[in-house]
Amino acid sequence: MNIVLFEPSEIGKPLPRDYDRSNHIIEILGRSVGDRFDAGVVNGLRGKGTVTAIHDDRIEFEFEEAIEEPELYPIDLVVGMTLPQTCRKILRDATAMGVQRIFFVATEKGEPSYSSSKLWTTEEWRCQLVAGAAQAFTTRIPNVSIDLSIEEAMALVQSANTKVALDNYEASSSLANIAGSKGAVALAMGAERGWSSAERDLLRRNEFELAHLGIRPLRTETAIVAGLAILSQIFVT
Amino acid sequence: MNIVLFEPSEIGKPLPRDYDRSNHIIEILGRSVGDRFDAGVVNGLRGKGTVTAIHDDRIEFEFEEAIEEPELYPIDLVVGMTLPQTCRKILRDATAMGVQRIFFVATEKGEPSYSSSKLWTTEEWRCQLVAGAAQAFTTRIPNVSIDLSIEEAMALVQSANTKVALDNYEASSSLANIAGSKGAVALAMGAERGWSSAERDLLRRNEFELAHLGIRPLRTETAIVAGLAILSQIFVT
Repeated sequence: MNIVLFEPSEIGKPLPRDYDRSNHIIEILGRSVGDRFDAGVVNGLRGKGTVTAIHDDRIEFEFEEAIEEPELYPIDLVVGMTLPQTCRKILRDATAMGVQRIFFVATEKGEPSYSSSKLWTTEEWRCQLVAGAAQAFTTRIPNVSIDLSIEEAMALVQSANTKVALDNYEASSSLANIAGSKGAVALAMGAERGWSSAERDLLRRNEFELAHLGIRPLRTETAIVAGLAILSQIFVT
Repeated sequence: MNIVLFEPSEIGKPLPRDYDRSNHIIEILGRSVGDRFDAGVVNGLRGKGTVTAIHDDRIEFEFEEAIEEPELYPIDLVVGMTLPQTCRKILRDATAMGVQRIFFVATEKGEPSYSSSKLWTTEEWRCQLVAGAAQAFTTRIPNVSIDLSIEEAMALVQSANTKVALDNYEASSSLANIAGSKGAVALAMGAERGWSSAERDLLRRNEFELAHLGIRPLRTETAIVAGLAILSQIFVT
């Protein structure tokens, strides 16, 4: 946690002591009354918090807004719905890497039913986004949708300049050879067991180019980080 | 696990039933007597295993060697010794991504004492390498050293053509701008809290260029995957 993020509704209210964030401020950062810490509002401004009181069950703080955060990168991620523990990592890392939208889609070889897991039926998915932004010292989190069909996601990313799907089997080009042009990017990645033939056809019909990351198949969450690293290079100055 | 890997000493001997690998062959892959599965010898040839007997407490198999695996990429990783759970991910992902050597070094802001954790005092570190290779459908694993000083690691990677250290504070260039020339690569990454001033000087004296991955600090293990993805592009065809 490189910055302590609050929801707009939490500003001006005491923060319970048993929360990650109050522990972080008091125990990890070692802040006392009067001390400042990096803080921000989710999808809002970044600034400084000041500890104004420490009680057994809560801390109090003031928040001073100061800095408009840079926009997220114009990168959309389309991912086959997969295991909750994998989705957690994707949510956190893709947020930290600056992705603007994430669409979890049903795929033939994936497990659409995972969208009924606790990760998705509670607010936990959003906590992962906030944790990713807090790691990345920023306030902005991506929009996330689940339970989409591939077709629906394709329609939502239709205007991207670069559309690429990671694939270990039928890709003729490495991702590095495709990346490089400016403009919005859509990156599609199947679940653990990849795309079906029908899905590859659908991706191609929607002008997605199939690309690989080399001969070594990576775990879904690792391939996504690797793919985002390569594709986001054009936005990093 | 995309391939079942064996140590040379395990070939021709029964495999206990309670092992990950026998479960994988019988339960996950659903193989019966006479069925074949992708198999290989750690740092040796890849080929096919055939199940020859299934007992309550063990399975028996034959292994047919066939294919020499491609060399690992000429990429060395120098990493500040950090939390065992972080090192586990680095070991597994860096192996899957084809790194040839990993040096864990003591850094001022890291925790050299973590090298006395169970990960390092048992064979568990090596199991992580084998798991990474099994994910990547290959047999080759990197050489790993721990308890080195930064100076010792610098000496071991001295001849690399591209030497780069990830740094969020004093880097003037993005990694993408440095990557691209052919030849051996050394990538250095501090532990969670990064490099000290003295270490930055030491890195610069050893011709390491400081580079960043953008304005968003990533977790150590995520930054390593992102850095390796960018640096290995020149070796991926």
